[in-house]
Amino acid sequence: MIRIGIYGYGNLGRGVEYAVSQNPDMELVGVFTRRDPASVHANAPVYRAEDVLSYTDKIDVMILCGGSATDLPVQTPQLAQHFNVVDSFDTHANIPTHFENVDTAAHAGGHVGIISVGWDPGLFSLSRLYAGAVLPEGKDYTFWGKGVSQGHSDAIRRIRGVLDARQYTVPVPAALEAVRSGEMPSLTTREKHTRECFVVAEDGADLARIEKEIVEMPNYFADYDTTVHFISAEELKGKHSGLPHGGTVIRTGTAGDGSRHTIEYSLSLQSNPAFTSSVLCAYARAAYRLQKEGAKGCKTVFDVPPAYLSSEDSASLRKHLL
Amino acid sequence: MIRIGIYGYGNLGRGVEYAVSQNPDMELVGVFTRRDPASVHANAPVYRAEDVLSYTDKIDVMILCGGSATDLPVQTPQLAQHFNVVDSFDTHANIPTHFENVDTAAHAGGHVGIISVGWDPGLFSLSRLYAGAVLPEGKDYTFWGKGVSQGHSDAIRRIRGVLDARQYTVPVPAALEAVRSGEMPSLTTREKHTRECFVVAEDGADLARIEKEIVEMPNYFADYDTTVHFISAEELKGKHSGLPHGGTVIRTGTAGDGSRHTIEYSLSLQSNPAFTSSVLCAYARAAYRLQKEGAKGCKTVFDVPPAYLSSEDSASLRKHLL
Repeated sequence: MIRIGIYGYGNLGRGVEYAVSQNPDMELVGVFTRRDPASVHANAPVYRAEDVLSYTDKIDVMILCGGSATDLPVQTPQLAQHFNVVDSFDTHANIPTHFENVDTAAHAGGHVGIISVGWDPGLFSLSRLYAGAVLPEGKDYTFWGKGVSQGHSDAIRRIRGVLDARQYTVPVPAALEAVRSGEMPSLTTREKHTRECFVVAEDGADLARIEKEIVEMPNYFADYDTTVHFISAEELKGKHSGLPHGGTVIRTGTAGDGSRHTIEYSLSLQSNPAFTSSVLCAYARAAYRLQKEGAKGCKTVFDVPPAYLSSEDSASLRKHLL
Repeated sequence: MIRIGIYGYGNLGRGVEYAVSQNPDMELVGVFTRRDPASVHANAPVYRAEDVLSYTDKIDVMILCGGSATDLPVQTPQLAQHFNVVDSFDTHANIPTHFENVDTAAHAGGHVGIISVGWDPGLFSLSRLYAGAVLPEGKDYTFWGKGVSQGHSDAIRRIRGVLDARQYTVPVPAALEAVRSGEMPSLTTREKHTRECFVVAEDGADLARIEKEIVEMPNYFADYDTTVHFISAEELKGKHSGLPHGGTVIRTGTAGDGSRHTIEYSLSLQSNPAFTSSVLCAYARAAYRLQKEGAKGCKTVFDVPPAYLSSEDSASLRKHLL
């Protein structure tokens, strides 16, 4: 059995708890939280985050479930000295720095750390890598959605007069179609995605001002065609409380004989954190096996042989899946 | 530069020749053929297959381009003793035996052999493995086509009175839709694919008898709804001379919290051999790197870390693709 610890117990941590229960070769040893353990209800013992180093010989892989903004840049290197770790660090621009920090720590402790695991970065990155390697002359496209962007929802919530909000990123069907046709179009940000916002405003708030602040918000909305719907708190809760997401990675390219090819990888996810958690668990298995074999240091999904993710052995994989 | 040899020069061998030219870190050293080298026109020196062992120090990876029925089961183990090899062995049921034979030979010679490379087996297998590892509770579906099945086309050509034929495998749209919906339907062979045949018959042949022999042919057609069109040799040449193919691998599954997820991987290929050749080249790079690192024996796509396929280095991959 691979003994798993969860460090941080929000949506993602709960997802990992569920995901561990689906993997017969894993058991959940405990959940580590910065909150008062007595206030956290989990289907495993709950421990104080600050006591984590007492569990180094009881946990094979620690799955870090904090956020990429402030938690993981600190926690993953710290814990990689003492545990095999897996995280879902997703601030693309900071991946090289995070990799170096985790690599140094994991080497020092003789552990394996796998970072940036999930679907993007993660499975989408793999799709881009495989497609680019087999079609060196071609062009990549990534479309996200339809799905909830938590960062954009948060940005709307910070506007004065907004009580709650939910933002959907929606790929433009005509853009998807143009890409699939193999025409290799050049697409602007605006041509690829639209943004749809469901907003609960305070009674008497200036709706026109709120809408204007949303659609003109730089970086988040100004470069997109954005639609704003004001709805009641009840409707938001009833119709928009899930966290669905997904998307599509497409590469179209030309082989040496001029023939054209399209490679497409799509995800349709009812729950973004539940799916990300499932990916984290598969890579926890890989971290465990890699370290057993003597590997150390930081890895990404690019470095992990696919067979290490599966609970089946190699002979069985060749027989049933190849 | 990775020095590549091509062993067998049909559609696939020509495809590899083109594919090598798209990869700046590879050069084609020569083509080995069982035909008279003077009769073969390639953009590289053409050598007699029987002289291949004179080139062991000039070739880093030999890409085998023979057929799975009789060529590869003999050739891949023979050559794996003397070269790093990559093949596209695709007789699913015989993969375990082929693996053992290549593994023994490659270990004996200190080489790496990567077998069953292409899209199915190959990229489709990878998609099944990744999807199954991240969604352990779910169901896999593979649809092929629309595309030309060479095995089925050949089977029709063996019927008395048939001059030429082309068979397309076509996925049933309603089946694809049912799978994508996440309903996890149980589908019979007949419900998943139809078969469409374009046949050139001899003058005066008994068309009704030919059609009956096709649609009732066991293993090949009897379990499918099959349509037969008799056309002229000109029409066959004009409209059906390509070898397009592709297909879709879908896994739908449920995470531990009950949320449902769909993972879909699709290929749309204008030329089946050109694309397969491109995949072979990417794995030739991996075979070269693995052996440089001290690996030996037989591998499949399941064993190869994705980064080994790319001409970019790991730091650059993390920065640009992760």
